[in-house]
Amino acid sequence: MDHSNPNTFHAYGEAVGQRVFGASVAAKKGAVGVMVRSMTTLESDIPHTGVMIYRDETPTKIPAVAISTNAANQLTEMLNGGERVQVYMRTTSKNLAPKTGYNIIGEKRGATHPDEIILVGGHLDSWDIGEGAHDDGAGCVQSLEVLNIFNKLGYTPNRTLRVVWFANEENGMAGAITYKEKSDRAGEYHMAAIESDRGGFTPRGFTCEADESVFVEKFRQVSSWSGLFQHYGLNFQRGGSGADIYRLASQKGLLCGLLPDTQRYFDYHHAETDTFEAVNKRELLLGAAAMTAFVYMLDKYGLD
Amino acid sequence: MDHSNPNTFHAYGEAVGQRVFGASVAAKKGAVGVMVRSMTTLESDIPHTGVMIYRDETPTKIPAVAISTNAANQLTEMLNGGERVQVYMRTTSKNLAPKTGYNIIGEKRGATHPDEIILVGGHLDSWDIGEGAHDDGAGCVQSLEVLNIFNKLGYTPNRTLRVVWFANEENGMAGAITYKEKSDRAGEYHMAAIESDRGGFTPRGFTCEADESVFVEKFRQVSSWSGLFQHYGLNFQRGGSGADIYRLASQKGLLCGLLPDTQRYFDYHHAETDTFEAVNKRELLLGAAAMTAFVYMLDKYGLD
Repeated sequence: MDHSNPNTFHAYGEAVGQRVFGASVAAKKGAVGVMVRSMTTLESDIPHTGVMIYRDETPTKIPAVAISTNAANQLTEMLNGGERVQVYMRTTSKNLAPKTGYNIIGEKRGATHPDEIILVGGHLDSWDIGEGAHDDGAGCVQSLEVLNIFNKLGYTPNRTLRVVWFANEENGMAGAITYKEKSDRAGEYHMAAIESDRGGFTPRGFTCEADESVFVEKFRQVSSWSGLFQHYGLNFQRGGSGADIYRLASQKGLLCGLLPDTQRYFDYHHAETDTFEAVNKRELLLGAAAMTAFVYMLDKYGLD
Repeated sequence: MDHSNPNTFHAYGEAVGQRVFGASVAAKKGAVGVMVRSMTTLESDIPHTGVMIYRDETPTKIPAVAISTNAANQLTEMLNGGERVQVYMRTTSKNLAPKTGYNIIGEKRGATHPDEIILVGGHLDSWDIGEGAHDDGAGCVQSLEVLNIFNKLGYTPNRTLRVVWFANEENGMAGAITYKEKSDRAGEYHMAAIESDRGGFTPRGFTCEADESVFVEKFRQVSSWSGLFQHYGLNFQRGGSGADIYRLASQKGLLCGLLPDTQRYFDYHHAETDTFEAVNKRELLLGAAAMTAFVYMLDKYGLD
């Protein structure tokens, strides 16, 4: 565990289990409810929320809420001060029955290597407390913009360029799972896939992953383009790609995630502040430009 | 001229002459007034403003205004569409007589090398159209925070650490010029100086400059620390330091500027949007932390 990692996703990853499994752990110890400090880097009155899961062995499904960081600080002070604290919890959340939703897919067929797919995508659904502008309206817009830029340039891709807006990323990944099943059944090969799902902030580079049997060689090829990207403050690093695309690893292509500056993501993520106005157009478009440049290289030179 | 430079200060530097000297150039050609498209990367209704100078040979001091980028686009459309366009200009700006202002200076004397000064600073004044939160409230707060962090850590510097909030950066540099004169007269040696005057955004590194006779060797020493800073996304590069400190080059020390992410700076710079709320606390403090880490290395190892 590297506490000095300046990427806020690292901190989130270390802490989020308290929200996801806190109720299960606490119920076993006899708790009647759980309140977690919201998993945000922001000091504010607005709670960050997200999925929580009752483990199968959870004795009682106790209520669980997230409280804002300011509220948590206040509560801590009261408890440390020896005050007798009483909390009244009322939650109105409930799980509704599933409804059918759809992935939205558009593609431009490759001129010379149509069977080599380059996917760019994001997810269409959002955690319902905000508008989901950063998570993941930004990724959807950027993915579409890749195709839009090629169209404006009059560039015909050699490989098949496919834009995918995945359904249900926030609540079970049904869109991603179905996409992968259908793709496998059709015998498709995703030579590369890039997901943007870390907010519409100034791009810093791309994280890359792949099946172990092919990662080193494919990452070597991509890294050989580093000089072209460094000038724009973009680098390639090993790391998770995206929740909607990582399953495609079995097709033995390269899976990548756009990595923007992470400092403000958890100011907005899964909170009512994740609105259209919170997205900076210039930063959003720079991310789309970075993805387009990467796709261009992938399309032009391919990946062995 | 490198049109691909992703640093928005580069674009600003290329364009700002239109605002500064546009009136002088146009007056010579018989213009009765000048309107410039405001020097911002933002598409908005809010004009970016700043200094303009009548050159000595300017025949008539014609009025000059900046209009917002949206207004400029609209005007361009009207002119391109062949419309007859009439503009009414009224400006109420005037130069008032100078008043005496002051630099604000605090220092912690070095324990072992008190004659080697490490300056951290920003400027106290702001272009009067906004609050000047990014330009340069951020730099003032960050400079003070360097000293604050050392105090909290109980760290006693070896060298003399001096925090300087310069007066009058926006309108003549009187504070910086006076500081330099007094420093020279006192026989001081600024071993290093770091100015923060590019906004309170996520830090990317430092620009460094020095007298030609010493730059290569001093920059080599600083660059040998790169490995410690790269992990945090910080790098050292050659470049201008800051408007208030570059004059200290004659003392043969190293002069540096904090380099934050530049994509949003001109959304706020010299506009009514440069307010307290536009500064992200986390990003601001990361800049202060970066400066503190750099000062720590300078203080601990010195510069030959």
